[in-house]
Amino acid sequence: MKIVEMRVTPVAMADPPLLSSYGLHAPYALRTVVELVSEDGLTGTAETHGGASTFAQLERARPAVIGADAYYLARLAVEVDRLFTVPTLDGGRRPLAVEASKTFILPGESGADIAARVFGALEVAALDLIGKATGVPVCELLGGRVRDEIPFSAYLFYKRAGGGGLAEDAREDNWGACLDADAVVRQAREMVAAHGFGSIKLKGGVLPPDEEIADILALRAAFGDGVPLRIDPNGAWTVETSIRVGVALAGTLEYLEDPTPGIDGMAAVRHGLLAAGVETPLASNNALTSFADVPAAIAAGGAQVILSDHHYWGGLRAITQLGRLCETFGIGLSMHSNSHLGLSLLAMVHLAAATGHLTLASDTHYPWQTTEDEILASGRVPFEGGSVRVPTAPGLGVALDRDALARGRERYERSGYRSRDDEAEMRRHVDPSWRRLAPRW
Amino acid sequence: MKIVEMRVTPVAMADPPLLSSYGLHAPYALRTVVELVSEDGLTGTAETHGGASTFAQLERARPAVIGADAYYLARLAVEVDRLFTVPTLDGGRRPLAVEASKTFILPGESGADIAARVFGALEVAALDLIGKATGVPVCELLGGRVRDEIPFSAYLFYKRAGGGGLAEDAREDNWGACLDADAVVRQAREMVAAHGFGSIKLKGGVLPPDEEIADILALRAAFGDGVPLRIDPNGAWTVETSIRVGVALAGTLEYLEDPTPGIDGMAAVRHGLLAAGVETPLASNNALTSFADVPAAIAAGGAQVILSDHHYWGGLRAITQLGRLCETFGIGLSMHSNSHLGLSLLAMVHLAAATGHLTLASDTHYPWQTTEDEILASGRVPFEGGSVRVPTAPGLGVALDRDALARGRERYERSGYRSRDDEAEMRRHVDPSWRRLAPRW
Repeated sequence: MKIVEMRVTPVAMADPPLLSSYGLHAPYALRTVVELVSEDGLTGTAETHGGASTFAQLERARPAVIGADAYYLARLAVEVDRLFTVPTLDGGRRPLAVEASKTFILPGESGADIAARVFGALEVAALDLIGKATGVPVCELLGGRVRDEIPFSAYLFYKRAGGGGLAEDAREDNWGACLDADAVVRQAREMVAAHGFGSIKLKGGVLPPDEEIADILALRAAFGDGVPLRIDPNGAWTVETSIRVGVALAGTLEYLEDPTPGIDGMAAVRHGLLAAGVETPLASNNALTSFADVPAAIAAGGAQVILSDHHYWGGLRAITQLGRLCETFGIGLSMHSNSHLGLSLLAMVHLAAATGHLTLASDTHYPWQTTEDEILASGRVPFEGGSVRVPTAPGLGVALDRDALARGRERYERSGYRSRDDEAEMRRHVDPSWRRLAPRW
Repeated sequence: MKIVEMRVTPVAMADPPLLSSYGLHAPYALRTVVELVSEDGLTGTAETHGGASTFAQLERARPAVIGADAYYLARLAVEVDRLFTVPTLDGGRRPLAVEASKTFILPGESGADIAARVFGALEVAALDLIGKATGVPVCELLGGRVRDEIPFSAYLFYKRAGGGGLAEDAREDNWGACLDADAVVRQAREMVAAHGFGSIKLKGGVLPPDEEIADILALRAAFGDGVPLRIDPNGAWTVETSIRVGVALAGTLEYLEDPTPGIDGMAAVRHGLLAAGVETPLASNNALTSFADVPAAIAAGGAQVILSDHHYWGGLRAITQLGRLCETFGIGLSMHSNSHLGLSLLAMVHLAAATGHLTLASDTHYPWQTTEDEILASGRVPFEGGSVRVPTAPGLGVALDRDALARGRERYERSGYRSRDDEAEMRRHVDPSWRRLAPRW
């Protein structure tokens, strides 16, 4: 099935002023919609990271895409890889640009995984296309659904007051500021009431660790033992602080996510916690972001749960393969999320449906986005009891609302934002001298 | 796509008196053909191990298969697994019957991988069915072909004189006895001349190791450095002997396959070879036969090449997943073979086409089988330059010759053979006191 057209549409959506150790979310989050059109006029769609660099990278892959067979994905992966890597002396290939450290790289911005990101977007769109051509849902193309509902976790954020977007894009904000335990519990209650989530993650690394410990304990007191809790400070803590927090929250956390930067640091935290008799698993999507990171991470014991992300691990099939790898090595598997629209959410849903080992509730920023920004013809994807039902229609099971997509593109043009820089937003709105530090405490 | 019928047909094919450390091949090799029929009357086919136990195991899975959706394979895998495993205290499952040691288990006879074998056969048939229903070749269902021709290796055997089959099934034998270097080189020349193979494997473990070393060196002298050589004594050697052979053949072997039993033994061989400055990789399909074996094998360094086999690792997708795992850990990947017909060969071809990391020429016993026993309507699958072209027709790309299949079944009934017992054949025809020993030397 020949691909005759590729459309790459950058979009922006309103994003509230959420806080993390990276800084402050800008008023807009950026995404990119990829559409592949087959010679018989079918269209497959995918959503991926946003901004100017993603757009340029996808456009660079255009010659490899146009004329390619949508089924020949492994071949396309090789061709995309060649565009963004250079040969090494040992016969392998390495990324054109690899940062010395991942610590300060945002998901979607790493030079190390450009090929995986570009191919991942193309693969999802091609699988949607194949599904539409054959009348088969994407999860069935991946090996078949093992579950019909995919659980997600409530994703709490410390937050400044106000909604996302600027001027005509300004959104109402019902959440308010969130910088203490009462507000955290209120945010959790509202999010759980609205969507039914059965587990809760707090994006930490914003307040001094003792305050965040207190906030997790407040969530535990409010929700009881039946609701798994997680905290993710995005590497804001030293090894010592991470161990201290892990000990303080022993028995309270389902897992502790990326407390400190790097696999060696994570491994040191793990060994410190085990020495203190604390078996809380460590999860990571920062220290561990590609297959290349896996052997060292497993050898060092730096992650007991991999938070996968098909957007930067190289697509849906890559994550089903990671699932088998994790199952083989006794490592847990869940999914990381960036700010995203329903198209990414449904790709995650199909993937989780077909990945038996992916049993933990996945992350999603989706509740922070608004109806006005959704680009699906069917509108916002609903959560029922914290879960999304796996579509049964062909492909990803949705169609784009082209007017909404056009509005997303206009919003992108208007916003002026072309990359994510949470540090700059923090300086602009909170503290002109603010710097991202990892670790900070 | 509902499965409404499953046909399980045991077949026998003439097999010449090939020797290995297991003993002597019987006059018949046994296989099983599985056909799944969809509600709209399409049929998907697969070939797997043979004999009474395979037949019974597939029949035991029948209730899980009939009425199942051919696309819901991950779910079927779980159901099949439940039929052949029991729960463990830690929440996992273990095979109903696990032998204490794999050393004396023949491929296709292990109690540890019944579920993987049964599901593997069903999955291949279901993928053939899906391919036929959607007009797509199986390799494209697996992620897309990265190559159009799949290289196989010449598979040399020490051998008694005579062809396979008995009475009306007796086949002419042009190979003759093969028990010395001249005969080994002659066999290799004939097989390479007939099929164009570009690499050569000798099944060893039959003659004293020094004779087999001499035979490999004779092959090297006859074929030169351009033809990779391998030897596989099926665990017939001690660690010390394995190291001695590895040193004697340093620089001559592409890899040394299963010289000694067990991963610990293999690891000891590896370390001994490295200490002697010999970097010949070790390959295994004996010490390492399932995903469960992989972590210990990698940790110990007991295998640098995994010889996969979709028939007992759990199907085609499982091997594409193993491919990613091997790529991640820097382990080579190739394919093991048992005596098989063209249906298994083509499943291997589709798999290798879609598994980029599978770059080594695969094993195949196919040249030892004869035209009379082939069950494909298109007849024997040809090798061109040692490779098989990847089919472009839907599914596996072939149809069964139902008369030939019926003859295979009659041959099965007539043969009286219901399981593989190379040791018994050796006692019957060569030495009444012969015993399989691993290691022997």
